[in-house]
Amino acid sequence: MPKISQKGQAMPESPIRKLVPFAEAAKKRGNKVFHLNIGQPDIKTPQVALDAVKNNTIEVLSYARSEGSEEYREKLAAYYKKHNINVTAEDIIITTGGSEALLFTLGSITDAGDEIIIPEPFYANYNGFSTANNTKVVPVISSIDDGFALPPIEEFEKLISPKTKAILICNPGNPTGYLYSKDEINKLKALVLKHDLFLVADEVYREFVYDDNKHNSVMSLDGLDQHAIMIDSVSKRYSMCGARIGCVVSKNKTFTQAILKFAQARLSSPTYALLASEAALETPQSYFDEVIEEYVDRRNILIEELNKIPNLKVSEPKGAFYCIS
Amino acid sequence: MPKISQKGQAMPESPIRKLVPFAEAAKKRGNKVFHLNIGQPDIKTPQVALDAVKNNTIEVLSYARSEGSEEYREKLAAYYKKHNINVTAEDIIITTGGSEALLFTLGSITDAGDEIIIPEPFYANYNGFSTANNTKVVPVISSIDDGFALPPIEEFEKLISPKTKAILICNPGNPTGYLYSKDEINKLKALVLKHDLFLVADEVYREFVYDDNKHNSVMSLDGLDQHAIMIDSVSKRYSMCGARIGCVVSKNKTFTQAILKFAQARLSSPTYALLASEAALETPQSYFDEVIEEYVDRRNILIEELNKIPNLKVSEPKGAFYCIS
Repeated sequence: MPKISQKGQAMPESPIRKLVPFAEAAKKRGNKVFHLNIGQPDIKTPQVALDAVKNNTIEVLSYARSEGSEEYREKLAAYYKKHNINVTAEDIIITTGGSEALLFTLGSITDAGDEIIIPEPFYANYNGFSTANNTKVVPVISSIDDGFALPPIEEFEKLISPKTKAILICNPGNPTGYLYSKDEINKLKALVLKHDLFLVADEVYREFVYDDNKHNSVMSLDGLDQHAIMIDSVSKRYSMCGARIGCVVSKNKTFTQAILKFAQARLSSPTYALLASEAALETPQSYFDEVIEEYVDRRNILIEELNKIPNLKVSEPKGAFYCIS
Repeated sequence: MPKISQKGQAMPESPIRKLVPFAEAAKKRGNKVFHLNIGQPDIKTPQVALDAVKNNTIEVLSYARSEGSEEYREKLAAYYKKHNINVTAEDIIITTGGSEALLFTLGSITDAGDEIIIPEPFYANYNGFSTANNTKVVPVISSIDDGFALPPIEEFEKLISPKTKAILICNPGNPTGYLYSKDEINKLKALVLKHDLFLVADEVYREFVYDDNKHNSVMSLDGLDQHAIMIDSVSKRYSMCGARIGCVVSKNKTFTQAILKFAQARLSSPTYALLASEAALETPQSYFDEVIEEYVDRRNILIEELNKIPNLKVSEPKGAFYCIS
């Protein structure tokens, strides 16, 4: 019998998706299942996005442009400007979810055996994308004792080798809920400039920041144009995980040209989802205000109740919608 | 400035997509452009698929199951049975296009430096997926003189090394239009059994077979359960390239379990497109009859006219919708 590759064997099973069959069996037994295992919001998708698909006039469901349409990328650039992220359509390549954005990024900046440093705990699928690309994940430990703040820069420096190509952060963090301060982001900036590394920031939870905190994007730092790479997705922002639309954003032209070649090989992102994602940019601010109010309420109840459990240590999320204990 | 990976540098630019900016510029100048460079049918997508999306009642656009829903895979298995392909839902993993099906397959059966043998000329993006996975493509030359028939098995055997993991064919062929005979498929079967290789068949043009020819799937061969892998897609069958839905089909459980792990890492295929693809299975036979009549007409006109050009050698496609000269 022909053999599976070492990579195929090494690919991790999703620790989250592993629970699906159990949940489905419980539902069949008539139990009500609360899915706390997966970042799938129950929040309604904005009506403007749903309507764009329901009212579509497509007759031939054609390929989209590999990098996404000019129009969509222009509108995205305008959206980013509102968030103090000064980019143009040319700096954006549309991807099939944040997942593909990360996969293409790893492919463009690491070869087999190259390393990326990631503060741990981190989103489980970073392991999957890294294994798929033969990239080695080097974790730097963050602690619940300070709410998963950025580990000391010396801890990063201890781990940097000639194989190190990038630092990857998730901000706000999945699963930590931690939001990096301006000071912490600046420390990372100094670090990657010193060692000439890429700084890759998964910022898909940008909108979900609580208690008057402010999000600091790696794309809003001066002097980091050649080093900063932002990963984004419409999945959580508009509660449309099933769209599978994301993007890679960078001002480093050599990098975005490499990403484009990966994008061309897979032809295009899904056309209906692109319609929904472009329309979603018209979502009114009131939608986000309500969603954030809802998430803050839920967080407060959850934290309050978890804190009643003896000997359970809980970190209070400043952003995203995860809680870790 | 941090460097792009060797892989990122080696990724090929799409020779097809490279033409897009020129076509767009010509359109802006007011010219009518006939896109002969890309496999994007102008045939209308089946109404039943378009309607499924227009009439959807989704309120929260959620992730789909990583491997595709049970229902869709059951229906697909029933569809394959009509084509003498005897598989069950368990043998099928839904992917985001045939592109992802190929990428996951290469990841599951080859490690860096491993080789796959492909009859040349072949679909240009096979190079892209291989580069993305550090897989080496070893071409075996087929010739226009016999219409791109299967090269002699001795030619394959000359190229087989300990690094060889699979033979990849496209049947009917993009871009050759060649359709492998039962005898040729059986020769490939004997070859992969002798050398214990995977036989990967990209069969996305299965429906487009002309002149009373018959398609022979690698999945309909006895004794090849552990070796045969079929790549499929809804893109051409239903003229819905923009859906980005495909699948990997195999009876080799170790292989499909590896594919599932790649699928879990990227979470799910696009939900709207899954709706369209599942509904497309209800497309009436009359749709295919009309499409095939149209393609045969177009082929005949094209071949007739090309043959009038002095010193131009043209091969007459038996399947798919490409013509090579």
